[in-house]
Amino acid sequence: MAGRDPLATQRRILDAARKEFAAKGISGARVDAIAARASTNKRMLYYYFRSKELLFREVLRQRLVRRPGDPVIEDGPYSEWLRRRVAVPATWREYTRLLMWEALEARGRSSKILAADERRAAYGVLRARLAKAQAEGDLPTDLDLDQMLLSELALVTFPVAFPQIVRLVTGYAADSPEFIAKREEHLRQLGALLAAERAPSG
Amino acid sequence: MAGRDPLATQRRILDAARKEFAAKGISGARVDAIAARASTNKRMLYYYFRSKELLFREVLRQRLVRRPGDPVIEDGPYSEWLRRRVAVPATWREYTRLLMWEALEARGRSSKILAADERRAAYGVLRARLAKAQAEGDLPTDLDLDQMLLSELALVTFPVAFPQIVRLVTGYAADSPEFIAKREEHLRQLGALLAAERAPSG
Repeated sequence: MAGRDPLATQRRILDAARKEFAAKGISGARVDAIAARASTNKRMLYYYFRSKELLFREVLRQRLVRRPGDPVIEDGPYSEWLRRRVAVPATWREYTRLLMWEALEARGRSSKILAADERRAAYGVLRARLAKAQAEGDLPTDLDLDQMLLSELALVTFPVAFPQIVRLVTGYAADSPEFIAKREEHLRQLGALLAAERAPSG
Repeated sequence: MAGRDPLATQRRILDAARKEFAAKGISGARVDAIAARASTNKRMLYYYFRSKELLFREVLRQRLVRRPGDPVIEDGPYSEWLRRRVAVPATWREYTRLLMWEALEARGRSSKILAADERRAAYGVLRARLAKAQAEGDLPTDLDLDQMLLSELALVTFPVAFPQIVRLVTGYAADSPEFIAKREEHLRQLGALLAAERAPSG
């Protein structure tokens, strides 16, 4: 069976690998388990992806190129964009867990970042959205865009990455509709406050 | 040697456990390695802490009761507080990694949160600081304090948790003095913007 349709086999391996890596990290993931879940064998897995690390890299790369839930950049105030960026755990959890494993398993600050070019390009899109907000008066012109991009990612990603802290602080489950609604309203409000300087309501 | 000074032995075990858990998580940590690093043996470790999970819980509890770098609550604007909250990776990395392992290794949303009462109390102090900022006009009175507390934790913790994203977005190492200085200035600026509504500069 494996080999008859190489693209389908590769897709099954990548799906299985994404689940296994998200659950157990790079060190903890077992190539046997990925192959079994993909209805193939280790030999085929190594034939297509060469090593566990290169397979992880490909999983991350694919996840970054097509990140779930990234809204299309369209017109409208920054506050509305920020509200719509609230990450829904059901779709973001796997991706966020991959990033957490990557951070935990990195070997020191000099370690090479996987798929760095694609990832920089993806962040470039978000940075362009911030520059647009500056140009339209929705963000202060002296705001450091790299720092603001990190802050946006922090506000959006943190509750998905640390559901235990969401529960401790708010009492809600991070993936509950109640929490997501409150988070959306909060980010909308924060976004509006960032613009308030230029539109004094006095 | 072990047993002659029980408190010293317990302290060595906790120090060794904190390092081992921060590096490898709960599943990955080896009790043998913790005992060896603490110059004791497994028998003493189980005598004092009973299980690997209870040892992790105690490590987390101690880390939460005395969290590094939490500034004392004193007078001054919220923006200055937020600036001083910027987490320096050298002191926050271990603690942040423990939180990440905890999130990754939790068994579903119904799993019991370790040391929940102490942790709620620690977050209560930060929530009180936000309420003070509201009372002093440094934050809007209609801002949801639970949500704002999550946002503060996100802004402070995210760069320590995801150093690879800091590098991709800013080009700096997350623990470089350059990055920390820029982050401090950015959080001061964000804090000031949140207060701007009440002090229109028009």
